[in-house]
Amino acid sequence: MSDRYVNMRNLQFLLDEVFEIQQLQALERYADYDPEAIKLTIDTARQLADQHLYPSYRAMDREKAHFQDGKVLVHPALREAIRALAEGGWVAAYFDYDHGGQQMPYTLLNVCQHIFYAANSNAAAYAFLTQAAANLIVHFGSDELQETYLPSMLNGRWQGTMALTEPQAGSSLSDLTASARLLDGERYAIKGQKIFISGGDHEAVDNVVHLLLARIEGAPAGVKGISLFVVPKYRPVDGKLLPNDVQTAGLYGKMGQKGYVAAHLMFGENDGCEGYLVGAPHHGLAYMFQMMNEARIATGNLANGVATAAYHASLQYARERAQGRLPGEKDPTQPPIQIIEHADVRRMLLFQKAVTEGSLALLLQCSLYADLMAAGPAAEQGKYRLLLELLTPIAKSYPSEMGIQAVSAGMQVLGGAGYTDDFPLEQHYRDIRVNSIYEGTTTIHGLDLLGRKVMMEKGQAVKLFLQEIRETAARARQFEELISYADTLEEAARSLHQTTLHLLKQASERPPEYFLADATLYLELFGLTTVGWQWLQQGVVAQQALQASEAGPDRNFYQGKMICLQYFFAYELPKRLYLEHRLQSYDKLTVTLRSEWLD
Amino acid sequence: MSDRYVNMRNLQFLLDEVFEIQQLQALERYADYDPEAIKLTIDTARQLADQHLYPSYRAMDREKAHFQDGKVLVHPALREAIRALAEGGWVAAYFDYDHGGQQMPYTLLNVCQHIFYAANSNAAAYAFLTQAAANLIVHFGSDELQETYLPSMLNGRWQGTMALTEPQAGSSLSDLTASARLLDGERYAIKGQKIFISGGDHEAVDNVVHLLLARIEGAPAGVKGISLFVVPKYRPVDGKLLPNDVQTAGLYGKMGQKGYVAAHLMFGENDGCEGYLVGAPHHGLAYMFQMMNEARIATGNLANGVATAAYHASLQYARERAQGRLPGEKDPTQPPIQIIEHADVRRMLLFQKAVTEGSLALLLQCSLYADLMAAGPAAEQGKYRLLLELLTPIAKSYPSEMGIQAVSAGMQVLGGAGYTDDFPLEQHYRDIRVNSIYEGTTTIHGLDLLGRKVMMEKGQAVKLFLQEIRETAARARQFEELISYADTLEEAARSLHQTTLHLLKQASERPPEYFLADATLYLELFGLTTVGWQWLQQGVVAQQALQASEAGPDRNFYQGKMICLQYFFAYELPKRLYLEHRLQSYDKLTVTLRSEWLD
Repeated sequence: MSDRYVNMRNLQFLLDEVFEIQQLQALERYADYDPEAIKLTIDTARQLADQHLYPSYRAMDREKAHFQDGKVLVHPALREAIRALAEGGWVAAYFDYDHGGQQMPYTLLNVCQHIFYAANSNAAAYAFLTQAAANLIVHFGSDELQETYLPSMLNGRWQGTMALTEPQAGSSLSDLTASARLLDGERYAIKGQKIFISGGDHEAVDNVVHLLLARIEGAPAGVKGISLFVVPKYRPVDGKLLPNDVQTAGLYGKMGQKGYVAAHLMFGENDGCEGYLVGAPHHGLAYMFQMMNEARIATGNLANGVATAAYHASLQYARERAQGRLPGEKDPTQPPIQIIEHADVRRMLLFQKAVTEGSLALLLQCSLYADLMAAGPAAEQGKYRLLLELLTPIAKSYPSEMGIQAVSAGMQVLGGAGYTDDFPLEQHYRDIRVNSIYEGTTTIHGLDLLGRKVMMEKGQAVKLFLQEIRETAARARQFEELISYADTLEEAARSLHQTTLHLLKQASERPPEYFLADATLYLELFGLTTVGWQWLQQGVVAQQALQASEAGPDRNFYQGKMICLQYFFAYELPKRLYLEHRLQSYDKLTVTLRSEWLD
Repeated sequence: MSDRYVNMRNLQFLLDEVFEIQQLQALERYADYDPEAIKLTIDTARQLADQHLYPSYRAMDREKAHFQDGKVLVHPALREAIRALAEGGWVAAYFDYDHGGQQMPYTLLNVCQHIFYAANSNAAAYAFLTQAAANLIVHFGSDELQETYLPSMLNGRWQGTMALTEPQAGSSLSDLTASARLLDGERYAIKGQKIFISGGDHEAVDNVVHLLLARIEGAPAGVKGISLFVVPKYRPVDGKLLPNDVQTAGLYGKMGQKGYVAAHLMFGENDGCEGYLVGAPHHGLAYMFQMMNEARIATGNLANGVATAAYHASLQYARERAQGRLPGEKDPTQPPIQIIEHADVRRMLLFQKAVTEGSLALLLQCSLYADLMAAGPAAEQGKYRLLLELLTPIAKSYPSEMGIQAVSAGMQVLGGAGYTDDFPLEQHYRDIRVNSIYEGTTTIHGLDLLGRKVMMEKGQAVKLFLQEIRETAARARQFEELISYADTLEEAARSLHQTTLHLLKQASERPPEYFLADATLYLELFGLTTVGWQWLQQGVVAQQALQASEAGPDRNFYQGKMICLQYFFAYELPKRLYLEHRLQSYDKLTVTLRSEWLD
């Protein structure tokens, strides 16, 4: 097993050369992030990952978290990992200086999270869950809530969670029934069950702070009657931690991510559970959704971290394992070749590289939009907000869905060995699968993209997106070698636009289920074009470097980018042909079929 | 968890209505298989599966096989399952009456195996491994070997295995190094290691009989120097079982199929291992390959059994689980609907149904070719042999590769619940993954199809295949409703033919690695057309029935076939557009790239 789970040269390439993160230093919020600080940050993250995360990745799967005598026992390395991340300042990294943060650009933070997730997605997830929960308190919580809860969350002593899902509601948040009865002030009695709560309870921390959605008695039905509460496992009172009637019913037996607990929790079974309102009543879902973009990008990043580690493991195997000969070699006394020399192994490796590096580029593109939206010139913030909103379902779904395929290709490179626990691929394969379910299933993101994002502000976001593609294509055309890719990408973009108009026309003619029937395929099509764009963007930089530089160690790196661009346009982007074929159809058989025909 | 893991109505449809198995009764070999005998056989298989296989499927995963004190301990239900299958006559079912068999048509046997695999792929696999091993002894073993080994293999007391793979050789059989030194007569001293040996050792049987490939000292290099041996774990001598120096080094920690052991075996570490030559020296691989078609079809059948069980589990969940509302319903006080009413859930269910029922049709089509080849008119046997040879790589790979995707869709239907061990989907997901590696990886089947099968006898097999498609299309054109499908399928077939010619042209112009570079994609393309043909064939029968019959319970069944045909032609077959786009290209970047560019 390699300790090479991430490609540091690629991180530098994306940050410095493609996204030119140095531009952010000109913004007041990020003024402290000069090139030296950026480099130091990344190196520190890598060291932390090597030391506190990577070594326990496999062990957390083998000695999985379990529920015993009312306690959730986790691998001993988890406490250390959570502390190391918190004490390194990673939980609060992008918070304001005022809130104990470092005002780290989101783009830089996500590069570091990529390292953490690739090293140990199970352990790293706990800290960033706490980050998301703390962020809600920072933005919407009262001063008292902030003073009471933030310090121990940011130093890694307390775990934060997002407690949304309920047994009867699943993805349908409008059907939540957990209840909140006013006691006094902002104090409520909480009652209800929450399921699949990641990090919901465990012994690596001293307390768990749930950011929980519930309905205040008498609230309106549906999503407009949901409020947000802080509900701790233990109430901090006069320096002591008192039980708050939050009970763990059990853990889920997950196929993967066995080091990352998912709990079934019962709140107020004995009418002794207190919660504290965050912000205004009935605005809970709105608050949650303000954090949703980052949670979704984090999920994409998590998936891509796993797929990246899998790529490096399969690449190493392919370089080391000798087997077989090229088809033209008929002499069995010739020595076998390394399997990386076989064309189909290379195809599978290129697929993994194209998916993982393309996904990372997309995730960082979105992160950069978030940074410019948060701290850039006021006149441009709206533009970046629209682009971010539009691309978020893709940044969540493409790395998840295609990451599953990429890890599967990685396992296939190893053959039978990949199916065994002698190599990490089988854990990657199990671990990554949940990402297309977390934070909204792929179906939901398709509906979000086609039913909401594409239409918002009269299609303004799509226009901006197409403009970005045109700009990249124009830059690419300065290089003879890239002209055909620029043409192909622009054609794909035009075709995507036509498909979009075709679907929107149906939206005006028929009930919405028709127009949305194949939204998942539309999401896939949009993802292909988007990642194709990211590959052309990388190709421009690589081509520039290849023409400028002498031959050297970097030459192979840039050639790798060029071959991946070529691969993506030859093998991946053409998938749009069948997606467009389907999406252009009027026949919506999944709407018109009758359920009793299925059996 | 449903006990509905297979659709019996569909089995009847395929056997009686589509493939008209009653035609086989006219052949001397199958004269005893009248409709009543066929029905009885299937019902018996289902009862056995319900009673002895299905109940322990999940338990064999939870209490997985393990190696302890030199013994391979398996779930207690396994011994009973193996005995029930053997005593039911299933190990020897298609052997001649003379060899203790029932001369069961392969088509009928594979329908029954479908039931067994869907019920418990882990347990059923042991018995059919013994079948394959016994079959080699029946065909090529001496009378003495037959008398010594067959009775205990056929009654389930002894396990059979296929011992091919070695640590240094993997898929490359020409590099095998296990050695055989002549002792006397057909008795040889065996020495070497074998890895990934399924059923290689376990306590549910009293002995294990390995059909092992090794090189006789002085044999030629490569595949022409490989011989086949019977190597028992214990030598039967005068009614006693004496140790034969076959040691188990350990079991593989497989991601799935945890009830189906894969062992690392050491033969002759103490120079005390005897093996008995089967057939002539140096012909071992040829013997093995005569059994390969059936082993490969069995692997496709195994994969499809798992995917079928997964389909039924997800269908049941989709019918029972209420969540969300249709996109047009904005009133949150309306009750939620069953998720089977959501278009994207239906798409995922249709995908599973189209893949699993399409795969089963293909597997039975191949089985019927095998029956006609074995027992049909002599003048036609060559035709059926060619069709079987051509379609075997597809019958192995399509159910495996697409089955993996289908099970994943099934898990996605359940959302988070599907990722947990509260439902069987997560086991299906882990279990099925290995089938694209077993019995030759998908890569190897692509090379077999394009590099060997397409070219054999000057392309005669492809011509026969295209003829079969034309005949089905002609039958379909008798129905107004099917004309457009017939046209589409014939166009796909023409296009496949053109792509084939394009590739063959390259074969004459460039080294073979160029022409074979995308053989895996060619296999996928061929699979789409083949399964499209199988769906049109089913559509013809369904349309006939719909036009003939009164409305009744069968009406929904036939409508289900029609909607699946429609689904396949709308969502699956168009994937050929991007595959053809790629395969028509001359640029073979996976051949020309340099490995050092990957990182």
